[in-house]
Amino acid sequence: MRDHSDSIKQNNWIILMPSGRREQLPQGTSLLDAARQMGVEIESICGGKLTCGKCKVKIETGQFAKHGITSAVSHVTPPTEKEQALLQRMRSEDFRLACQCFVEGDVLAFVPEEARAHKQIIRKSATERVIDVEPAVRKVYVEVEKPALGEHRGDWGRLRDALVSDWQLDHLTIDWMLLRRLQPILRRGDWGVTVTVWQDREVIDVQPGFVEGLYGLAVDIGSTTIAGHLCDLRTGEVVATESMMNPQITYGEDLMSRVSFAMTDAQGLDKMHKAVLKALNTLTGRAVAAAGLKISDIVDVVLVGNTTMTHILLGVNPQELGGAPFALATRDGLNIKARELGMRIHSGAYVFVMPSEAGHVGGDNVAALIAEAPHNQDEQVLLVDVGTNAELVLGNRERLFSASSPTGPAFEGAQIAYGMRAAPGAIERVRIDPETKAAIFKVIGEERWSHEWGAAEFEKPAYLASGICGSGIIEAIAEMFLCGILASDGRFTELQHPRLIVDGRRKKYILATGVETATGEPIFVTQDDVRAIQLAKAALYAGAKLLMRQAKIEQVDRIVLAGAFGSYIDTKYAMVLGLIPNCDLKNVYAVGNAAGDGARIALIDATKRDQAQYLAEWVTYIETAVDPNFQDEFVGAIAIPHATDSFPELKDILPLSAGMNVGEARANGSGRSRRRTRRKNRR
Amino acid sequence: MRDHSDSIKQNNWIILMPSGRREQLPQGTSLLDAARQMGVEIESICGGKLTCGKCKVKIETGQFAKHGITSAVSHVTPPTEKEQALLQRMRSEDFRLACQCFVEGDVLAFVPEEARAHKQIIRKSATERVIDVEPAVRKVYVEVEKPALGEHRGDWGRLRDALVSDWQLDHLTIDWMLLRRLQPILRRGDWGVTVTVWQDREVIDVQPGFVEGLYGLAVDIGSTTIAGHLCDLRTGEVVATESMMNPQITYGEDLMSRVSFAMTDAQGLDKMHKAVLKALNTLTGRAVAAAGLKISDIVDVVLVGNTTMTHILLGVNPQELGGAPFALATRDGLNIKARELGMRIHSGAYVFVMPSEAGHVGGDNVAALIAEAPHNQDEQVLLVDVGTNAELVLGNRERLFSASSPTGPAFEGAQIAYGMRAAPGAIERVRIDPETKAAIFKVIGEERWSHEWGAAEFEKPAYLASGICGSGIIEAIAEMFLCGILASDGRFTELQHPRLIVDGRRKKYILATGVETATGEPIFVTQDDVRAIQLAKAALYAGAKLLMRQAKIEQVDRIVLAGAFGSYIDTKYAMVLGLIPNCDLKNVYAVGNAAGDGARIALIDATKRDQAQYLAEWVTYIETAVDPNFQDEFVGAIAIPHATDSFPELKDILPLSAGMNVGEARANGSGRSRRRTRRKNRR
Repeated sequence: MRDHSDSIKQNNWIILMPSGRREQLPQGTSLLDAARQMGVEIESICGGKLTCGKCKVKIETGQFAKHGITSAVSHVTPPTEKEQALLQRMRSEDFRLACQCFVEGDVLAFVPEEARAHKQIIRKSATERVIDVEPAVRKVYVEVEKPALGEHRGDWGRLRDALVSDWQLDHLTIDWMLLRRLQPILRRGDWGVTVTVWQDREVIDVQPGFVEGLYGLAVDIGSTTIAGHLCDLRTGEVVATESMMNPQITYGEDLMSRVSFAMTDAQGLDKMHKAVLKALNTLTGRAVAAAGLKISDIVDVVLVGNTTMTHILLGVNPQELGGAPFALATRDGLNIKARELGMRIHSGAYVFVMPSEAGHVGGDNVAALIAEAPHNQDEQVLLVDVGTNAELVLGNRERLFSASSPTGPAFEGAQIAYGMRAAPGAIERVRIDPETKAAIFKVIGEERWSHEWGAAEFEKPAYLASGICGSGIIEAIAEMFLCGILASDGRFTELQHPRLIVDGRRKKYILATGVETATGEPIFVTQDDVRAIQLAKAALYAGAKLLMRQAKIEQVDRIVLAGAFGSYIDTKYAMVLGLIPNCDLKNVYAVGNAAGDGARIALIDATKRDQAQYLAEWVTYIETAVDPNFQDEFVGAIAIPHATDSFPELKDILPLSAGMNVGEARANGSGRSRRRTRRKNRR
Repeated sequence: MRDHSDSIKQNNWIILMPSGRREQLPQGTSLLDAARQMGVEIESICGGKLTCGKCKVKIETGQFAKHGITSAVSHVTPPTEKEQALLQRMRSEDFRLACQCFVEGDVLAFVPEEARAHKQIIRKSATERVIDVEPAVRKVYVEVEKPALGEHRGDWGRLRDALVSDWQLDHLTIDWMLLRRLQPILRRGDWGVTVTVWQDREVIDVQPGFVEGLYGLAVDIGSTTIAGHLCDLRTGEVVATESMMNPQITYGEDLMSRVSFAMTDAQGLDKMHKAVLKALNTLTGRAVAAAGLKISDIVDVVLVGNTTMTHILLGVNPQELGGAPFALATRDGLNIKARELGMRIHSGAYVFVMPSEAGHVGGDNVAALIAEAPHNQDEQVLLVDVGTNAELVLGNRERLFSASSPTGPAFEGAQIAYGMRAAPGAIERVRIDPETKAAIFKVIGEERWSHEWGAAEFEKPAYLASGICGSGIIEAIAEMFLCGILASDGRFTELQHPRLIVDGRRKKYILATGVETATGEPIFVTQDDVRAIQLAKAALYAGAKLLMRQAKIEQVDRIVLAGAFGSYIDTKYAMVLGLIPNCDLKNVYAVGNAAGDGARIALIDATKRDQAQYLAEWVTYIETAVDPNFQDEFVGAIAIPHATDSFPELKDILPLSAGMNVGEARANGSGRSRRRTRRKNRR
């Protein structure tokens, strides 16, 4: 810092654009300090060492008049050669560095977006939100006093003193393992080093010289899928996204079977714990490779998951979650050294594990709250995340209620005769011709509807049908109901049709014929499938109604569907079947992986972690299992409530309504001839 | 706690003996609470749960008069059956439990020593001191609320709440790895558990039921020897003491050679780091075995060592300590999870590494300050710890100065022609007959002086002489000077004698003849040996004088010799040779391993750790290497200063003065005949 004690102190107007803030400050103040005093945070890593070039400002002239000041030009000290050289290297000759401009009179300066310290990014999703970029970890550059005889603070002591004097970072500790590398690093950097500080509490890295780059990883550990976003913590941008199957699936498809495995197999917990860690490390490796980084570039991690996933991640046996009263080991968010947990990222970095709400509402739900922020809204929002259990949150800024509804795994394709996970070949969309009762469908991995599949090589589907996934079975049952195959109580009607096979005493419906399937055998929808979906949807609906009763509201303003299932189901069919309470359909929408989004938000804006802890305790959790109203609501919700007439717009989206009668064509003939026929029909 | 809200509240006199504290308190107060309010800390682990039986008090009667109160008897609630049963089991029927006595009128009670919470122990050593028993770790018993539907704090949340309400332990965290075991432990203890809390900050263990026992380990990691005390942290008692060689000796005898090894061998640091950790684990294993404990019983560790030892222990390359300006990686004390460091004790426990003062004055010196506490004294104390370097501290409560003097390893037997470490067979005591110039000596491992060694099997020495250790060479040179073999400047005099051999141009003195040595060859003291000791003692003396100059004093009041060398050398010879400044000999004494004692004190009384950090920074370190006065003092100190006349009492301790003339007998004849002769002489 230059010493201006010899200059005559007087007050000068400093005006900073675009904020328009103005203040009178004495001569000799640097514009960087001036901005700080005026509450305008200008970015700076090197703290005036002419290393980072972050604090660019534009010195303006001739606009003072409109600010009520009579000056004609800005008065700042001229640039030094060193500053000019740096600005030239950065091709920013029109700018000055705020740390190098000292006030000599009135000053009007413009702070460009990239120089503003508190950045924000816009979350691109159904609900656009502004995210503040305030990561838990930051980098600062310091020049450390060299050791000298007669001075005994040690290298860390001198580094700490520099961090106090240059950055007001008081009471810092240092990761003890970093001490092993500290001395050579300081010397390699010739006593100029970039320090990585976690939560303004602990020095977790020191690098020689001036180093940029600050990356973190947000991971949603789902029972089925682990999805991670690698983010630039200085801009908030996602630089790589990776996902993979949760390898724990080997030990059990759903949560309860994993809890059982941990309870019955002496090595069960350990196997699942190691599997998820290995997966996290694999995912991390892929993400950094995709972004052209090293694993040691990752200095922060946020992990979210349901309570079972979190427990297993921590190596805690989830057995207590398997039975009432569903006691968590801990509800709190945790900061754990990644190396202690076994995550291979920067050796000094911490992992933040999101807090949980209750035994069956975990950090993934808290993350979804962070992402969707119903607690900031006036409207009554119902947030629905469907997995093996459905997690529901209802409320607004006044109060939030949450519940976990025992939907079972039917929505994930389990307990369904031809059910499967949402994987290539799974039927995910279904339409049934009201006249012919024949179905067309779409499978995952193939763009075209089944009636458009051709015989010629280039027209063959990428995948034949191999089963039905959650969204497929919902559409199938809804369509079966809409075209009279199913009654409102879920039973097959008296309707007779070649598509309807009687199997023993019960009917089943041919959804896909043998030529359309991978096995060559037809795919059916059975009476049991319909029952399973009815039970699942009744549980979901009853949970929502229970929360509405708690919140004392008759109608929700908005329904947000989170998670993969929410993204794939057609909200209209969801309402036909009665999965969700009545709501204006335009206010029902899917937001994708809200839990993953929340994890990313908590990664980029660390203040959200405290908020998460607060929310986790603030939300009123309603135990569906013991609420007497739940059973009533559940029983009342088993029927399929809505006739087609309630949703006239459904008619419009049926491709069948385009005037084709493919059902008939398909109902007869061999696969080959049928295909030919269809091709003909398409022409 | 009993509810006394129905009783009439009034003020009653409570008098607690032996402190005599008195206060008026309302009816219904338990004596335990009363004592706390009155500043008398009564021990309690279970906090009124009738489990620990620690809070024993004796209810007195009939002595109120002398306290100016008119009551005749103490009024407390009668014991319940449960209390009576517990007192019976403890064979303490005359006592009551303070937590179970509720005030009903005036009360006079006696708190026995064992029930007082703040215990003290007396350190048995040259300087007896009172040590407060205030360990860093404590155990408390709590009963935790059971989990219930509708309550979602998690097991840790409920345990934490119990710790707040029963023990006012706010803001506790829990070792995250303990979460893995927490749930089954709580259930095994039927929700009654003993919690181990570190520094009132972190829960590091939870055990089912009521569990006593709290142990810690204090270790002094010397360059040569690693010595550990296993202590009962509730009483302060040492329950086992173990020591072993520092296995790093394989990689270098002295500090500088280990620093070199770390600098020149790519694996050097790692090898030495692993060696010391392995040794610590071996030592720990032996100590717990000797005390009949398990390694998991150890919940706290204090480690002290010189700076090189500490750096290697932490895995920090000590190379910067090998050259000016001798920069430490850190001067601070460190708390490190034992498992992270690699020490196998309780998995949640911390290791405290003592802070250092300067590059060459480490935590062992700080520990010696803690033990000897010159900062609490009015007298000017010189604390001398001789190793490869001598560490010196001088001062009193006003100010302390420290220095490291480059004595080199001569005092440890290195750089001496026939030098060796203080191991069995090393000559440690020497007397020379002023008339015959023949020497007798004692070796380590054999009680008798060499002239008493017999020829018969049972009279043979346990060890023949194999070399000279530090105390031996000092006595030899002092004796050689006293009997005219050496001049004051250290040169051999013109004296001719069969014991004096001329080797080239230089003389050497036969200290042990061939028959007295393990090799059969004589052991000599050479001119170079004398020079080496002169340089070493001059460095030590000059260091002390430098500190005296800094402290502006002419005379020290007391000299405390710490460390093994200090224990073995005879203070009179040390003064003859001029190792230490003049001081009344009765105020010169050895305290043994003061560093080890200080480690033990910091283990038992954790408040000493903060004091250690304070002292480490408060002591003014004087860099001998750059002080111009040091060279002057050094040169002036090379001569041997004292004539025999200065120490008339030396005459008395010489066994030769008992009238025997063994030297003459030994000077001639074969080993066999000599031995016979000696035996005859003895008779």
